[in-house]
Amino acid sequence: MSTPSPMLKEQLLTLDNPVFCCYLFWATVLVVKMLLMSLLTALQRFRYKIFPNEEDLFFKNIEVQFDDPHVERVRRAHRNDMENILPYFIMGLIYLSTDPSPTVACNLFRVAAVARILHTLVYAVYPVPQPSRILAFATMLLITFYMAAVVALRTLSFI
Amino acid sequence: MSTPSPMLKEQLLTLDNPVFCCYLFWATVLVVKMLLMSLLTALQRFRYKIFPNEEDLFFKNIEVQFDDPHVERVRRAHRNDMENILPYFIMGLIYLSTDPSPTVACNLFRVAAVARILHTLVYAVYPVPQPSRILAFATMLLITFYMAAVVALRTLSFI
Amino acid sequence: MSTPSPMLKEQLLTLDNPVFCCYLFWATVLVVKMLLMSLLTALQRFRYKIFPNEEDLFFKNIEVQFDDPHVERVRRAHRNDMENILPYFIMGLIYLSTDPSPTVACNLFRVAAVARILHTLVYAVYPVPQPSRILAFATMLLITFYMAAVVALRTLSFI
Repeated sequence: MSTPSPMLKEQLLTLDNPVFCCYLFWATVLVVKMLLMSLLTALQRFRYKIFPNEEDLFFKNIEVQFDDPHVERVRRAHRNDMENILPYFIMGLIYLSTDPSPTVACNLFRVAAVARILHTLVYAVYPVPQPSRILAFATMLLITFYMAAVVALRTLSFI
Repeated sequence: MSTPSPMLKEQLLTLDNPVFCCYLFWATVLVVKMLLMSLLTALQRFRYKIFPNEEDLFFKNIEVQFDDPHVERVRRAHRNDMENILPYFIMGLIYLSTDPSPTVACNLFRVAAVARILHTLVYAVYPVPQPSRILAFATMLLITFYMAAVVALRTLSFI
Repeated sequence: MSTPSPMLKEQLLTLDNPVFCCYLFWATVLVVKMLLMSLLTALQRFRYKIFPNEEDLFFKNIEVQFDDPHVERVRRAHRNDMENILPYFIMGLIYLSTDPSPTVACNLFRVAAVARILHTLVYAVYPVPQPSRILAFATMLLITFYMAAVVALRTLSFI
């Protein structure tokens, strides 16, 4: 991926910037992945008939119930997504506005998104032994820290 | 709502773009709605004297306590907000940057915000039988999926 | 901090705008602070050997366990961060796009970030009596409400 000519700062957050387009695509993938966690939780709730509210008791003779391991596993994975992917969205956007190297930035966006998809698979879909989940988790964490370092160094004088 | 002249890409995320202004207004409404959930939780905590930390025991002869149904209901509604509204904020912003139809975009912003206000009312304020909450939940979910599809199709070549 | 010449709207969300640079710096600080909460949770988990998943049992003769007060305190602080800082990120960004007074905006960004660092210290690191945490919490809340009011008044006609 190459930018044919130097980008004006005003163009960085527009479709004229291929790096922004790459961010858009992979951020969209991650938004969809996160929303699917809600549907996966709902699926587990219906499968194991575990509902947290009186008005959700869609089957006869069941009561509100919490702490089912199948449901809670998906909810922990979902919460972990919120803890990591949502700050990453903001960090990626402001990293973009500092006009980073297109090759570096695009590859970071790709690796981060794939890592979080793997994180979901090994956490919520088909649990496998560690350190698979730790590695998937650490990948996006380190990428976000790297972006933070780049932005902080560029903007340190505006403290 | 009409855009008098074609927007330059650089103007999409500025107040010169009425669609951006519409996003700003409704995103602001949703931010305020989310923050009010914190205050609603605090209200329930004081009403039922349920506090999760030693240093919060503002009344005599009470102990830290969890799992109160009135408090937990508001907290589930709040968590559901984070799971859905926060990804929607990012999705709406990047959907805007693809220069969507002003009429479609503005109506999506309006419907999504009203749906989430209704979601809060039927979940945390005055619980009513299903499927009211499911419908309110599904409305923003489907809108976010639609925006994701629009953005993904526009940026697929930047994978 | 002063802007030497009036900003074009297209330049507001670029490094040419010193207010945007100030937002970038302090948003980055808060992203890093939030991610450190994950590591603090992990630290507590290893210190007290409290793990929520079968595949995380890194020590012999332990079982999955929840509700440890040391771990849960950090998790509550982390959740509070998500409830407050993530909406603030979006609110700050759209507040910026309305071209606010540079002095006011920069000071709000600074105070909000410092308040949340203090919030973490008095909640998760070294618990102290109230109202320290309430004050730290209320600071960012009020700043976000102020920004929301500014944006809502500017965009009210686009409802």
